[in-house]
Amino acid sequence: MNVLFEPVGIIHSCFKEKFGIPRQAGIAPAARAELELFPPYSSPEAVRGLEAFSHIWVIFLFHECAQQSWRNTVRPPRLGGDKRVGVFASRSGFRPNAIGMSAVRLEELRVSPHPIRLLLSGVDILDQTPVLDIKPYIPYADLLPEARGGFAPDPPPAVFSIAFSNEAEAVCRQQMGHFPLLRDLIIQMLQLDPRPAYYCREPQKESFGTRIYDFEVKWTCRDSSVIVTAIE
Amino acid sequence: MNVLFEPVGIIHSCFKEKFGIPRQAGIAPAARAELELFPPYSSPEAVRGLEAFSHIWVIFLFHECAQQSWRNTVRPPRLGGDKRVGVFASRSGFRPNAIGMSAVRLEELRVSPHPIRLLLSGVDILDQTPVLDIKPYIPYADLLPEARGGFAPDPPPAVFSIAFSNEAEAVCRQQMGHFPLLRDLIIQMLQLDPRPAYYCREPQKESFGTRIYDFEVKWTCRDSSVIVTAIE
Repeated sequence: MNVLFEPVGIIHSCFKEKFGIPRQAGIAPAARAELELFPPYSSPEAVRGLEAFSHIWVIFLFHECAQQSWRNTVRPPRLGGDKRVGVFASRSGFRPNAIGMSAVRLEELRVSPHPIRLLLSGVDILDQTPVLDIKPYIPYADLLPEARGGFAPDPPPAVFSIAFSNEAEAVCRQQMGHFPLLRDLIIQMLQLDPRPAYYCREPQKESFGTRIYDFEVKWTCRDSSVIVTAIE
Repeated sequence: MNVLFEPVGIIHSCFKEKFGIPRQAGIAPAARAELELFPPYSSPEAVRGLEAFSHIWVIFLFHECAQQSWRNTVRPPRLGGDKRVGVFASRSGFRPNAIGMSAVRLEELRVSPHPIRLLLSGVDILDQTPVLDIKPYIPYADLLPEARGGFAPDPPPAVFSIAFSNEAEAVCRQQMGHFPLLRDLIIQMLQLDPRPAYYCREPQKESFGTRIYDFEVKWTCRDSSVIVTAIE
């Protein structure tokens, strides 16, 4: 028995490519996205009362993984990228049904102008991600103080100190009006070390880049410090 | 763009019909289920490491709702059944994509004999529910102490005191070997008042029944007390 779903909306995220996306929701509060609802789901009635919840679940399609094959085991970055765990013991996007779920903060619910948009923070979702469902975060059911977190018991530690080149600092200042959180976002993204584990074993590679909003952010890694060299 | 999923498993639950199922996961710890994985997903590798997590997310299909139409608004039992909220502000099964998600305790992971079975407690899932995905509950991402719960800020209160007829008590005792939690489950289910709100406005209706495991459980409601009259 197969099951057919139709996306109810789409994510417009600050993360324009996978490299750099925090590995779980909530760890980069400066990471913002807009969830745009499609008709016929974009109706004020369908979201009535949602603004009373501080957080929501976004159920989405890992669209960049959906066409690819899955394996029984994956190598979570949290285990250094060389230990394998079962795909069902991970939150990897490469899974039998490429469903993702993230608990994010609902900053604002904009019912006008059409279409309805939900402004979200703490996202770990790629731009253009199809949204399958939205649910309120219900603390008494979803917040489990007794839960043990297996191989990922604690948030990933900040492993890097981050410095900005003069040029990069200047861009952050210039863009303050439109992107007030740009500098915070870059710090929150880079201090967790977004590099895939195989890069860490290739110390000769020092220069990296990714796209945030319309910016190409470039940085170099050496030992435990990162220098943001350019924001273009 | 439509999205096609194939169930990875099925739920064998103590709840054989919808009436009586707790309205969220975790509120009836005596509620048990087995999640059976289908081939090719039923492989020890695919669940390797999952036993280190105390809780998992079960992503499932509300199969009894999936063929029915959805509405922009629903009437949550928590609001007495007469106030409407948006479907995306609720966890109702009648939604554009009939996806459900429940955080449940992983009591045991049985990799042999084939097929793999996950023993779960605190379930709020109907028997024969198709499972779309399993993910570990990751406290640092999923446990949000700052979250506000909108119209459902607290667990539903226990509104009833529960008494058992002599016959019903005798059945619980007889079944102690096979169903040690039967009595607890009935109490946890009934004290929250599983009646749809329209029954509460029909005080002339006093007798109810539902199926738990292979038992037909019957009870009567009067004022704030419930008597379990029969377990057949």
